[in-house]
Amino acid sequence: MGKKDLITRLNEGVVIGDGGFVFALEKRGYIMAGPWTPECNVENPEAVKQLHREFLRAGSDVLQALTFYASDDKLKNRGNEAGIKFTTQMVNKAACDIVKEVASEGDALVAGGVSQTPSFLSGAQKDAVKQEFRNQVEVFVANGMDFLIAEYFEHVAEIELAIQVLKETKLPVMATMCIGPTGDLHGVSAGECAVRMGRAGADVVGVNCHFDPSTALETLRLMKTALVAAGLTKVHLASQPLAYHTPDAGPQGFIDLPEFPFALEPRILSRYDMHKYAREAYDLGVRYIGGCCGFEPYHTRAIAEELADVRGRGPPGKKHLPWGAGLAMHTKPWVRARANKEYWVNLQPASGRPFSAAYAKPDSWGVTAGNELLMQHAHETTKEEQAQVWHLSAPKTL
Amino acid sequence: MGKKDLITRLNEGVVIGDGGFVFALEKRGYIMAGPWTPECNVENPEAVKQLHREFLRAGSDVLQALTFYASDDKLKNRGNEAGIKFTTQMVNKAACDIVKEVASEGDALVAGGVSQTPSFLSGAQKDAVKQEFRNQVEVFVANGMDFLIAEYFEHVAEIELAIQVLKETKLPVMATMCIGPTGDLHGVSAGECAVRMGRAGADVVGVNCHFDPSTALETLRLMKTALVAAGLTKVHLASQPLAYHTPDAGPQGFIDLPEFPFALEPRILSRYDMHKYAREAYDLGVRYIGGCCGFEPYHTRAIAEELADVRGRGPPGKKHLPWGAGLAMHTKPWVRARANKEYWVNLQPASGRPFSAAYAKPDSWGVTAGNELLMQHAHETTKEEQAQVWHLSAPKTL
Amino acid sequence: MGKKDLITRLNEGVVIGDGGFVFALEKRGYIMAGPWTPECNVENPEAVKQLHREFLRAGSDVLQALTFYASDDKLKNRGNEAGIKFTTQMVNKAACDIVKEVASEGDALVAGGVSQTPSFLSGAQKDAVKQEFRNQVEVFVANGMDFLIAEYFEHVAEIELAIQVLKETKLPVMATMCIGPTGDLHGVSAGECAVRMGRAGADVVGVNCHFDPSTALETLRLMKTALVAAGLTKVHLASQPLAYHTPDAGPQGFIDLPEFPFALEPRILSRYDMHKYAREAYDLGVRYIGGCCGFEPYHTRAIAEELADVRGRGPPGKKHLPWGAGLAMHTKPWVRARANKEYWVNLQPASGRPFSAAYAKPDSWGVTAGNELLMQHAHETTKEEQAQVWHLSAPKTL
Amino acid sequence: MGKKDLITRLNEGVVIGDGGFVFALEKRGYIMAGPWTPECNVENPEAVKQLHREFLRAGSDVLQALTFYASDDKLKNRGNEAGIKFTTQMVNKAACDIVKEVASEGDALVAGGVSQTPSFLSGAQKDAVKQEFRNQVEVFVANGMDFLIAEYFEHVAEIELAIQVLKETKLPVMATMCIGPTGDLHGVSAGECAVRMGRAGADVVGVNCHFDPSTALETLRLMKTALVAAGLTKVHLASQPLAYHTPDAGPQGFIDLPEFPFALEPRILSRYDMHKYAREAYDLGVRYIGGCCGFEPYHTRAIAEELADVRGRGPPGKKHLPWGAGLAMHTKPWVRARANKEYWVNLQPASGRPFSAAYAKPDSWGVTAGNELLMQHAHETTKEEQAQVWHLSAPKTL
Ligand SMILES: [Zn+2]
Ligand SMILES: [Zn+2]
Ligand SMILES: [Zn+2]
Ligand SMILES: [Zn+2]
Repeated sequence: MGKKDLITRLNEGVVIGDGGFVFALEKRGYIMAGPWTPECNVENPEAVKQLHREFLRAGSDVLQALTFYASDDKLKNRGNEAGIKFTTQMVNKAACDIVKEVASEGDALVAGGVSQTPSFLSGAQKDAVKQEFRNQVEVFVANGMDFLIAEYFEHVAEIELAIQVLKETKLPVMATMCIGPTGDLHGVSAGECAVRMGRAGADVVGVNCHFDPSTALETLRLMKTALVAAGLTKVHLASQPLAYHTPDAGPQGFIDLPEFPFALEPRILSRYDMHKYAREAYDLGVRYIGGCCGFEPYHTRAIAEELADVRGRGPPGKKHLPWGAGLAMHTKPWVRARANKEYWVNLQPASGRPFSAAYAKPDSWGVTAGNELLMQHAHETTKEEQAQVWHLSAPKTL
Repeated sequence: MGKKDLITRLNEGVVIGDGGFVFALEKRGYIMAGPWTPECNVENPEAVKQLHREFLRAGSDVLQALTFYASDDKLKNRGNEAGIKFTTQMVNKAACDIVKEVASEGDALVAGGVSQTPSFLSGAQKDAVKQEFRNQVEVFVANGMDFLIAEYFEHVAEIELAIQVLKETKLPVMATMCIGPTGDLHGVSAGECAVRMGRAGADVVGVNCHFDPSTALETLRLMKTALVAAGLTKVHLASQPLAYHTPDAGPQGFIDLPEFPFALEPRILSRYDMHKYAREAYDLGVRYIGGCCGFEPYHTRAIAEELADVRGRGPPGKKHLPWGAGLAMHTKPWVRARANKEYWVNLQPASGRPFSAAYAKPDSWGVTAGNELLMQHAHETTKEEQAQVWHLSAPKTL
Repeated sequence: MGKKDLITRLNEGVVIGDGGFVFALEKRGYIMAGPWTPECNVENPEAVKQLHREFLRAGSDVLQALTFYASDDKLKNRGNEAGIKFTTQMVNKAACDIVKEVASEGDALVAGGVSQTPSFLSGAQKDAVKQEFRNQVEVFVANGMDFLIAEYFEHVAEIELAIQVLKETKLPVMATMCIGPTGDLHGVSAGECAVRMGRAGADVVGVNCHFDPSTALETLRLMKTALVAAGLTKVHLASQPLAYHTPDAGPQGFIDLPEFPFALEPRILSRYDMHKYAREAYDLGVRYIGGCCGFEPYHTRAIAEELADVRGRGPPGKKHLPWGAGLAMHTKPWVRARANKEYWVNLQPASGRPFSAAYAKPDSWGVTAGNELLMQHAHETTKEEQAQVWHLSAPKTL
Repeated sequence: MGKKDLITRLNEGVVIGDGGFVFALEKRGYIMAGPWTPECNVENPEAVKQLHREFLRAGSDVLQALTFYASDDKLKNRGNEAGIKFTTQMVNKAACDIVKEVASEGDALVAGGVSQTPSFLSGAQKDAVKQEFRNQVEVFVANGMDFLIAEYFEHVAEIELAIQVLKETKLPVMATMCIGPTGDLHGVSAGECAVRMGRAGADVVGVNCHFDPSTALETLRLMKTALVAAGLTKVHLASQPLAYHTPDAGPQGFIDLPEFPFALEPRILSRYDMHKYAREAYDLGVRYIGGCCGFEPYHTRAIAEELADVRGRGPPGKKHLPWGAGLAMHTKPWVRARANKEYWVNLQPASGRPFSAAYAKPDSWGVTAGNELLMQHAHETTKEEQAQVWHLSAPKTL
């Protein structure tokens, strides 16, 4: 629609992605933690619109329609009201409408996304899995999305199927997995995953979620090396990590950390942590630089400010002076002394929590695949099951 | 207007205040850190409206018009564009309009607030100071505020003047100082400050900003004792602390902490920290329980959930199950095991920052009152002055 | 014997005490943790002698005979071999002989000490309690101790009895309690304890053990104020704190910290922490400056080096250059850069333990006095009792 | 002399080494930090003897003569008095006499050791370097050492020369390098270093100093793999790490950590940390398990207790009950509850230092090899040089 397409933008410079809608809207009161479904697109479109606007002002070049988990099985899961009142069609269409409206206030691209499905892990036929993706993709195409995203996959075998479906549309395709440097859950190395995503046809490959920026860039280094070795030099890199520090996460990421999801606050990156991330990503050659869970508009703004030199422009919103310059007008000289980059680059912010350690040990209960405790079932977790896990884990009381 | 007034609500039970608009809107991209002025009421009313709505959904019984620093001197300060485009009248009226519109979607009260003035410290005549307050109060009265707030005062002598002006209106008056257990900046004890505020006519007295919930409640204990001893038993208590842990703050609060204002992230309270705060405040007898800088809607929601038992209702928004109940449906048993109160109450969240300590030492440069470095002047900080403080503080480079 | 007596030395300047023999010899392999009895005076006198020598070289002006817990009930307790092979008489005499021998190699005073007794808490008659003290004191007098110490008392009522007995000898008496700023276990304030010790006749009063230097000095400030107010201006102050940081200890000190006694390593003070302690103690007016559990010879050496300016001499041993001067000869310039006081004064040493927090919560199990769990009995802890506490406290295993 | 030789002992089971004499004697007041020379063998033999005895009691099967840095150039360095009063011959002989005397009180082997020389780095001829080693070795052979050690080498090229010299004697030879997983300072991998040491004739190869047990075992894993691949299956492994946690050390180890050498206290391993080390070393196949800087007798005792099951005996000294059993007799039930292994294995000891982080960044000043700052010279560091580094590093003062 007159807007430059994704690939052109990536070839010409950096594309800044947006942030973590699910977590942000949960904190604002519009998404319920647990189901994590986005019926708010229909119930409270003004809230979703406002958040998209904030990312646009912060410098996002892309507005992703809030369609994560907007699939039938999720909306109807475990008695979730959402699935009773709203259909997948309604929610996805509303999501697309909202991003198109907000994108028109700027020059952003809009995208619709699919994620990993329960079907795949249950051993469904490839065609059945691909059909699930097709159901969502049809809505995206019908509603004018500029490109498509396959994100949050733990198995490259499944994202390959998703990419194939997305490529049927002729739209540009970005594919990111929620894996770390150790590769996917079938043991495929990160590099090999990247190559397979590239060969499946993805225009942009990378990682999202589960890990902090440092770890994500570590994974991307492996991916880049493999892509180059495989001659896939036209494929771009994308990083959309958490906005939480996770140096202590295990191979499966932050979900296993004891603090997930309600006590991750101490790990939140500062805007200056984000400057560091943006520069390192750029220097690595990543050209799609965004974020996932934990990212708020000011985090994205920091990316836009850091890379203003290579983009030739800062974020559209004009309510921020980089590197704390605004403190130059404070009454106390020691606070004015903080109005410079050196100060914030070198600061190691105190946690204010003397009873907290720096690292936690990820939970796993020493349980390996095959253990009865990991067996899934269709029905809702029973009271008996829940009592069992509570008994196994609850702290001792006198 | 058919709504129960503030005093009645306090006499009958808990009134939940809202949160920290200035910091929240700064992160959303609408308020510039440094000037901290709220011209966004005029420039982006939809953003301000949305945030008020989120606090209403979260359980706030009060929506404070965003008028902090909305005074002529602040809006016109140091070349701030705001003062050129918008008058105090415009900004304050817009702020009032917005809260009235949102409050009408629920049963919330609306309030306008005044804060400490530069005039007072410059030794202006009491009448001149009071006139500054009157300028703002007139707008509030003309625009239908239900009650008035005097907040963020470091000198009880000044808040007394403010209370006197606010009482001229016959509206209920809440007065909170941004002091800690050591009292105000003239050395008046916290208890004495409370008594003086009460005697000046405030219906509700307490503290806001500068300190974390623990410290705020420590100060309120002192205030309560003094009020009782002085026979001011009808005066209610209010607490609106930071949502940041500040166990290491000095007597003047978080502004002197090295992390202020851009690296406070690790100190952010979790929703479960807020449950603890709400219950302790309630048990102390505080009946106006809200928050200041750092509070986001989910923090207020936690207060509403904690005190649902005494309020007979939870927050209006229905997208949250208390105490992590939503995790009961997770695939991993060790994550399901987190769906209970015991788990979150006992968790000491890791910081994810191995190079950070728990405490920082507040800055003061060993500078005492009278030192040349603390002398203020009307004009903007000069480049020479700023170079001097940077030289004094910048880390050494090789 | 030609040596200046304790009081003269205190009136003229600082007297440096020695360190924590029980903990040091436990680490060297000569005292068993649990019984903590000093039969090593008889079994391995060369080891005890060597440690005394190290403290003498480090600058100790006093060598305390290792008689802590050298009483009949302790030596014979719970099947302890010690009580079968050695009598109280043997152990105490051996202890005295050793310190006299080593003291003669320098100009140190020798002292014998008594501590709190089980009898007192069992409600024994005052005379019975005093007789227990007399039994030990007789050995000290017969063996040429220069002065006497009553240390490690939690009840001022008991240390008063001890002081009375010690004063019968006409020797100088030092009395220290293992209490913190909150006072003794009967609720008597720290200041009141000091006054009572002074009035009972102690020449030197203060604190030892249970708390770190900061806390000990806090307690001593209270004691000093009370002594001055009571006109007891001739009484000297003594501090012999732990060499462990205990900012998180409860009112009863380090024994309730989860790390007691075998994982206190991270809390060990550095020699530079000790410089700070020595100077603060001196500035407060404390003239008997020593240490208790955790103190090793190099800690005492740091005190002697810090106060060399007021003592006119450094420690006898010549194998140390203060403030890291010895590093000036290192090959790496950044290590040479550490050869100055500024560096070490400002360094906050990292713990190297990312899974450890700064603070621990002292144990108490929420058990108050009177609870069945706190009831004592004469016989050894039974297997059933031990199984009970293990069941109540053991971590959960899957 | 009737004692089983080193190789036989290693083939039959675990040989427990002793600990860090230089650091331990520095704390006791007998070795000066900076020069670190062991003239105390002559000046205070009783102190050296006592420490050897403590390690023997703790379970050491080997007593290393304290000859580290007992070479002419070190003793005479920079005006060190030691070199004026005592010759290398005197010091080394005294060291050998002392260990032989103490070893005869048990069944321990005695060993003499050589370390890296300044000559090698200065580019001296191989023969010149080897002669330096020969000078010391002659004294060891003449004085009845049971085996020889080449330890604390950062270049495998140099330790090869040392091994060659040591093998001339026909005595068993142990060779350990102070390197980490990244290999030696010439870029030779750890595995390659092990193979070269083995091929040079060393009977035992491994690592000592510079790194904590975890890191040392990581390096040994690499060494073991390489030795097996090279068919050097008869060569035994030795580990003598620091008793300090160094997860944050750089490739050159703890000397570059800001806390070296005077503020390492928080990093000291507990006895339970040592149990873990001993078991992991044993499981890896390491049969010479000892320690270096920071190890005190109780650390070695912990190794002996952990491996009592495979050795068929515990440490000779009888003043310790494993796993805190001694606490079973404490008055407080929550302290008695600590008398079990589970408790100590799971405890993460608090640091007691809220202003300290877990990690420090090793110093290097961004200085690479070749930089003028790293140039060495023969003469003592001048005042001008020292002033330069202090200026470059000293904290800013107002
Ligand atoms: Zn995410
Ligand atoms: Zn505030
Ligand atoms: Zn003690
Ligand atoms: Zn070493």
